Amino acid sequence: MTDPEQKDGAALTRRDLLLGAAVAGGAALVGLPAVARSQAQALAHVVPPLVPIPEDATKLLGAPTSPVGTRSRFVTASRTPTGEVTGTSFTPLQDLTGTITPSDLHFERHHAGIPLLDPARHTLTVHGMVERPMSFTVEDLRRFPQVTRVYFVECSGNGRGAYRDPKPDLTPQKIAGMTSNSEWTGVRVADIMKEAGARSEAQWFLAEGGDACLLARSIPMPKAYDDALVVWAQNGEPLRPEQGYPMRLLLPGYEGNANVKWLRRLEVGMRPWMTRWETAKYTDPLPGGIARQFSFEMDAKSVITSPCAPRTITKGWNPISGLAWSGRGRIAKVEVSTDNGKNWHEAELQGPSLPKAHVRFAYMWEWKGREQVLLSRATDETGYVQPTRAKLIEVRGKGTDYHFNPIYGWRVAADGAITFHGES
Amino acid sequence: MTDPEQKDGAALTRRDLLLGAAVAGGAALVGLPAVARSQAQALAHVVPPLVPIPEDATKLLGAPTSPVGTRSRFVTASRTPTGEVTGTSFTPLQDLTGTITPSDLHFERHHAGIPLLDPARHTLTVHGMVERPMSFTVEDLRRFPQVTRVYFVECSGNGRGAYRDPKPDLTPQKIAGMTSNSEWTGVRVADIMKEAGARSEAQWFLAEGGDACLLARSIPMPKAYDDALVVWAQNGEPLRPEQGYPMRLLLPGYEGNANVKWLRRLEVGMRPWMTRWETAKYTDPLPGGIARQFSFEMDAKSVITSPCAPRTITKGWNPISGLAWSGRGRIAKVEVSTDNGKNWHEAELQGPSLPKAHVRFAYMWEWKGREQVLLSRATDETGYVQPTRAKLIEVRGKGTDYHFNPIYGWRVAADGAITFHGES
Repeated sequence: MTDPEQKDGAALTRRDLLLGAAVAGGAALVGLPAVARSQAQALAHVVPPLVPIPEDATKLLGAPTSPVGTRSRFVTASRTPTGEVTGTSFTPLQDLTGTITPSDLHFERHHAGIPLLDPARHTLTVHGMVERPMSFTVEDLRRFPQVTRVYFVECSGNGRGAYRDPKPDLTPQKIAGMTSNSEWTGVRVADIMKEAGARSEAQWFLAEGGDACLLARSIPMPKAYDDALVVWAQNGEPLRPEQGYPMRLLLPGYEGNANVKWLRRLEVGMRPWMTRWETAKYTDPLPGGIARQFSFEMDAKSVITSPCAPRTITKGWNPISGLAWSGRGRIAKVEVSTDNGKNWHEAELQGPSLPKAHVRFAYMWEWKGREQVLLSRATDETGYVQPTRAKLIEVRGKGTDYHFNPIYGWRVAADGAITFHGES
Repeated sequence: MTDPEQKDGAALTRRDLLLGAAVAGGAALVGLPAVARSQAQALAHVVPPLVPIPEDATKLLGAPTSPVGTRSRFVTASRTPTGEVTGTSFTPLQDLTGTITPSDLHFERHHAGIPLLDPARHTLTVHGMVERPMSFTVEDLRRFPQVTRVYFVECSGNGRGAYRDPKPDLTPQKIAGMTSNSEWTGVRVADIMKEAGARSEAQWFLAEGGDACLLARSIPMPKAYDDALVVWAQNGEPLRPEQGYPMRLLLPGYEGNANVKWLRRLEVGMRPWMTRWETAKYTDPLPGGIARQFSFEMDAKSVITSPCAPRTITKGWNPISGLAWSGRGRIAKVEVSTDNGKNWHEAELQGPSLPKAHVRFAYMWEWKGREQVLLSRATDETGYVQPTRAKLIEVRGKGTDYHFNPIYGWRVAADGAITFHGES
């Protein structure tokens, strides 16, 4: 064995690594616009021929240090479905632990694909009812006081399938994978409003993205002065392109689409703009032909991520673990039932339980071979309790299109096979 | 524009993406063992031909959803130096924000490369002074109660260059890049000891890794019953290979090498094993021919990561931002000086300030064009205050080899150019 402090062993330079890379060949990506095609190629990694796993890894030197690491070949977690310019990819919640979502597995919801933006040219313009209309690059915003906070983002359509059509083969990814949790860094919208001199009588502001559909949402001004941020970083690094690079709006606890990505414009005014994204979309139909509009806050919710479908468990200890979150503040309590809701037991919250952030809960459960139904129920600090599906249908109807947070869980058969249990 | 709810637009499947990938060609990787060579190839990504940035990104559809995201082409953060089977790569602290280190940028310190381990075959054996010797796979450990906590890891040699030879061209990566901070998930060593029936009179345990040098460290038993963990996940996903996949020891606050990676053995006994990794290495020479041995705890430390060398700043607000941490608990206070230590101002801690974890501090600073020296000084909850370099040299001598935490910072010249300032 070489001396661990000697640096003169076999050396592999960064240039060697680049020499080792091949350019992605032309693939069957016809039918996509040029940027989409090129970006898709950028997402395709080299798949090298794999060396066999050594019988005894202690008998040979391993791999060298590298500029940027890659996952183990045994880790296959990925978002699904994919390949859609207008679509959604879901985070594989069943493959994850803790509370932070790896940035490259954060769920996606694009309405016109991921735009390719140069941070030196991309600006955020603030105008309307302000004393001093202004534009800022990310570099300009870095002159402001910076804030780092952990918050979840959740698409308001998260859980639609499980609510409307609770099939037994659903997984955590399918029932709740349109939420992810990150440590965000940016600047307070309040400071931007102060810098631009937003007029005190202003009631709403419009946030507009720089993608091909110019997604735009109207937001009440009090949110700007509460906890709204313009962020440029996520989990310690610059935002990923699919999360709004170079900057996005971050409205803690508000439905995902209001957290406008590729943010380019904030307009200050007196009333909502009634964009298509708050009228034709993201307004919730209710029974009786009426609708909920500007239903920004995401209700408290929980999901058991382990054990879950399609696993088959064996007898003995099977720790129940999952995520809970609320758009209104901290999660105060998560209860778990192992008998389809007859009895509830308080789970351990693996703190700190931060406001408007995922918290992981855990409950030790020993399975003895009986058929059982596992459920979880979250309560937030406002006292709001996650409702049953029956209760939600009673209030909202089965046809409602957004904001689904019923209690659900997993049915464990006598042979240990697990299926989704959507009725509560 | 297509209707955002319609999913029938141009679709790119996962198979198309794989078709788009090319296999890494043979490169100049001679001189490396087969596993190292193959792993290095696995680390080389496709570099596709880049499309030009569109003049107006709102005028064309963007990239589609993808299984696993990649960074923007404008983000170039990477570890250095690289390519060493026995060596270190440093985290680019100046490119990061917040507190979480992206897993693929976590610093590396390998003594015999990264072993290639199959999680189905890799086991942790517990033996020695125990009632029931046992072996566990990761799947077995998942039956235990799980714990998720945020902790830093820091190499005990972090800062050696800045201490011994404080040159003006040093960067945050070079002076402090051998520390990173992650959310870890695993099981308490205390629970493993209880399961195996560790004898109450046992005083130490040995932790041995499954790499080619069988790195092994002796750890006092009280740490096992305090906060020691065996972890299999980092930042929500399975450990990265270079961080110990499939499992590692995590000793919060202890010097990095004691957090044994690729953990395969815990032996319980009465006295330290005096391995080469705690005698020839990782014992600190002091003046007078004596030495500090088993100096596990990392002392409180701080580093300003922005502004920093080699940047040149312009007049106006330049927020001072950095990281602080202590191996003995929470950071209680970080002070910043902008006049080379004459006056100190308390910085804002961007909480929560968690025990034995990085916390980010911030201090608003307006630069008016004068030459100034920026310093930071951390105090932890035990009252320990980060010392000056002069004080540290007085106690430890200039030749000491580990545990460097002097106050240092950055000199801002009258033209805004920044260089490292290593004397305090």
